[in-house]
Amino acid sequence: MEPSSKLDQQIAFLLEIDKLKNIIRRNRLVDGSRTENTAEHSWHIAILSAVLEEYSNVSVNLQRVLLLLLVHDIVEIDAGDTYAYDTIGYEDKEEREHLAAERIFSLLPENQFTQFKTLWLEFEEMETPESCFANAADRLMPLLHNYYSGGGIWIENKIRKSQVMERIAPMKKGSVALWEAACKIVEKAVADGYVINDEPF
Amino acid sequence: MEPSSKLDQQIAFLLEIDKLKNIIRRNRLVDGSRTENTAEHSWHIAILSAVLEEYSNVSVNLQRVLLLLLVHDIVEIDAGDTYAYDTIGYEDKEEREHLAAERIFSLLPENQFTQFKTLWLEFEEMETPESCFANAADRLMPLLHNYYSGGGIWIENKIRKSQVMERIAPMKKGSVALWEAACKIVEKAVADGYVINDEPF
Repeated sequence: MEPSSKLDQQIAFLLEIDKLKNIIRRNRLVDGSRTENTAEHSWHIAILSAVLEEYSNVSVNLQRVLLLLLVHDIVEIDAGDTYAYDTIGYEDKEEREHLAAERIFSLLPENQFTQFKTLWLEFEEMETPESCFANAADRLMPLLHNYYSGGGIWIENKIRKSQVMERIAPMKKGSVALWEAACKIVEKAVADGYVINDEPF
Repeated sequence: MEPSSKLDQQIAFLLEIDKLKNIIRRNRLVDGSRTENTAEHSWHIAILSAVLEEYSNVSVNLQRVLLLLLVHDIVEIDAGDTYAYDTIGYEDKEEREHLAAERIFSLLPENQFTQFKTLWLEFEEMETPESCFANAADRLMPLLHNYYSGGGIWIENKIRKSQVMERIAPMKKGSVALWEAACKIVEKAVADGYVINDEPF
């Protein structure tokens, strides 16, 4: 393959992923002004992972964590953002995202198709220290958004404490310290009336 | 300092930088639907650097490139985005951005204040291979946006070829190959009437 043609493929991919800026998530910005899109969310959690790397259960390769976080949501261009508490949407999430990964990453040259698809799968499978810490980052940020924007989306959707606790449980695999900090925020969210306390007395 | 207090500082920083999502740049998305914000732009150029790393003039530490690109625009929260062709805005850009770096990065614990400020300065000074390649990435993406969204912002602002060529010239320090590819896009932009040809015959 000619170098120019390879670069053309790479540029086509970079133009295609511009669409991630139009994929809208459920949570609002901290100032409550609007809902967040997935591209800016990806930037935010990448920075979060760099700032909070010291809390990882085990030492991680930060470059790999950054790439996992920057890449893993690109599939939402085709598959959409599945809301964390949407149990029906989760039924075919995996299939939708596999098809999306095939289509979007195949815009890249062969070796990069493999590299990006591998990054996406690594994030999903949560079997490496890097993907466990990346998943912890990805689950912490929405909690911070929901709590510090005044609990809006939790209140709107009548979210219960058990749902939030289930959502953040996988954080433990990446960072017990951040999971414990998250649990404290959930307690405050219950006390502030943002989340319904459905735990038995 | 107590660990909990340190984490509180880090979370305060992460909440503060949410504001980068409300800093609006001049260029439009590829589909022309709206102008771009700086947070999503930062995500895009980070991915670009990973995809196009092979074109760097010299081998680079990709982790550092990613961090430079993710961090360098955070100062815009206070200093605003200075449009590439705004000569008046550029007069006090450096001072405004220095003040912004001091305020925003000082939300972090001391060692991370230094780390993030150093990253920001490294990007600005363009003296390391990583910052040269990061700058090339940062200048290539807006060119792609302007060309592939139909030249809108170039046409609106009656931008001349010499201005675009001056804007992309620093790319050579990071990647001659990408600078050459960018020059070809400028030629096409002239041919398509997106950019005014002001070069002498």
